[in-house]
Amino acid sequence: MRVAILAHEKFPDRAKTAIGILRYAEYDVVAVLDRDRPGERVHDHLKNVQDAPIVASIDDIDEFDALIIGIAPIGGGFDESWRSDVTGAIERGCDIIAGLHYQLQEDTELASLADTHDVELHDVREPPDDLSVSEGIAGDLDATIVLTVGTDCSVGKMTVTMELVEALRERGVSVCAIPTGQTGIMIEGWGIAVDRVISDFTAGAIERMLLERADEYDVLVVEGQGSITHPAYSGVTCSLLHGSMPDQLILCHEPGREVVHGYESFELLDLEAARDLYIELATPVAPTELVGVALNTRYLDEEEAISVIESVEVDLDVTCTDPVRYGADALAEVIG
Amino acid sequence: MRVAILAHEKFPDRAKTAIGILRYAEYDVVAVLDRDRPGERVHDHLKNVQDAPIVASIDDIDEFDALIIGIAPIGGGFDESWRSDVTGAIERGCDIIAGLHYQLQEDTELASLADTHDVELHDVREPPDDLSVSEGIAGDLDATIVLTVGTDCSVGKMTVTMELVEALRERGVSVCAIPTGQTGIMIEGWGIAVDRVISDFTAGAIERMLLERADEYDVLVVEGQGSITHPAYSGVTCSLLHGSMPDQLILCHEPGREVVHGYESFELLDLEAARDLYIELATPVAPTELVGVALNTRYLDEEEAISVIESVEVDLDVTCTDPVRYGADALAEVIG
Repeated sequence: MRVAILAHEKFPDRAKTAIGILRYAEYDVVAVLDRDRPGERVHDHLKNVQDAPIVASIDDIDEFDALIIGIAPIGGGFDESWRSDVTGAIERGCDIIAGLHYQLQEDTELASLADTHDVELHDVREPPDDLSVSEGIAGDLDATIVLTVGTDCSVGKMTVTMELVEALRERGVSVCAIPTGQTGIMIEGWGIAVDRVISDFTAGAIERMLLERADEYDVLVVEGQGSITHPAYSGVTCSLLHGSMPDQLILCHEPGREVVHGYESFELLDLEAARDLYIELATPVAPTELVGVALNTRYLDEEEAISVIESVEVDLDVTCTDPVRYGADALAEVIG
Repeated sequence: MRVAILAHEKFPDRAKTAIGILRYAEYDVVAVLDRDRPGERVHDHLKNVQDAPIVASIDDIDEFDALIIGIAPIGGGFDESWRSDVTGAIERGCDIIAGLHYQLQEDTELASLADTHDVELHDVREPPDDLSVSEGIAGDLDATIVLTVGTDCSVGKMTVTMELVEALRERGVSVCAIPTGQTGIMIEGWGIAVDRVISDFTAGAIERMLLERADEYDVLVVEGQGSITHPAYSGVTCSLLHGSMPDQLILCHEPGREVVHGYESFELLDLEAARDLYIELATPVAPTELVGVALNTRYLDEEEAISVIESVEVDLDVTCTDPVRYGADALAEVIG
């Protein structure tokens, strides 16, 4: 399928869905839309991902089958400045794939237009309507459950999940990613956006996904969300921690980030304090251990990256790497 | 308003909504429905609350204006054994007030019957549809924010909230309860059932309620939910802790309870460990302190109750009482 990815004014640093798609999904990306960067290319900013031209609007794209909303603003709203591209894509017969809290299907104009042109509006963040409370049984599953946790949102939990699954698969491990956010769901083609689930049912949603996959695989790697000290999203993180009852944790962090993304008056915990808090909070429900740290070193040069990785390994006494820069094999080695 | 309260097979020990209404709401309760206890009275089981006869079905009640669903099963479902009482009440022109996850308004039979008989189906657990993420600003409010937290669900957080507000009011403090669950909402006539809110917006929901009331009152007492180590509900608790950014915590516990209600393979934390975990989890977002412990000593005799209260005061070095048994004045004294 040929897709265009909308990422206006946010590519690449604030377009984590777009980058996840470019890096891991099996779509043929024909263009990225960013009206601030027409004429540039994806590879001008990022290597190791699929390349594509960056254009100002869908009028600059020849042919495509679907438009993916590739940015996820705080609050999950629909930015009206996107509307002309979305309606234009629908009029050209393209499906729309979005992971916003805002439901495209409930937008009267878009729904009616989609109907007229016989295209689909996929709101991947919409959860199943038959979820319920957790039964507290994820800990009884035979599979090894790994959860990616973080010091903040947008530090790379989804990326680490995908890299770790790939590295485990290459080692011959029977492994499956458990997608819990819009990007992971778009990449894997299934999953539940847990941050969209009724809060009483959030732990139950992750439990259900684990129960569905535990018989088939030896290792399940759960895509984490938010952070346990995020002023807005910590409840989702807590539900994931207790609902998934992970055997092992991978802690994700971006060196140099010191305050919460979008909530800059709140400081991040350092890695040791974050590790301790995740483990103390998990233990009364299901004991767990931190087995690795995944750093996002995109803003560091080679020497800085290696230095910070080495110092984390010493300070926390666990495996540490940047899985995008150096591969996730070192992390894969400590799983199980 | 004359109300009947449905509590089939659960009164009194597993009917916390019914008891909350009997104890705190300004309704005239004409009967409690429990098919296991016809002929008994509320006062056979509980003092210090409004008395009423217990009957087997609505056929045994003369006149009433509304039927309240007074039990809140795990999962929040609608038990089909309640249907004849609910339809009977509607046919007699009574409104139905429910706080289930199951929405009565979406039950085709009930909705159509309510329409025919021109009565209202109040689903108090349904949240406003314009909620969004927290801005992380509850900590900036001038009011003193108090949150009731617990070692488990169903240990008395709603009750402690109501008792504490009453005791503060009697001391002349300008104080308001912030209801976060179905019972509190039924009693106070406003509020948001935070466990029904989309998990990404749960902290935002409590923040919104605090913002709405902070200018008017000096003290806001937030009704807590669940517990931070509950395998299913901890995410809601975490959102309340970080969304409300409380200045002070009151820890609620039922002496003798050792495992999670309904999840008996999970042990409760002891009071010291619970205090430490709540404070460690709160501090990175907003520092707080534990100022009191509220015990539910309903299963203890006088001597046992006093003994456990005294030993908690020594062990935790904070004020402790059973606010239902001895009043909440001791707790009110340490607020602010």
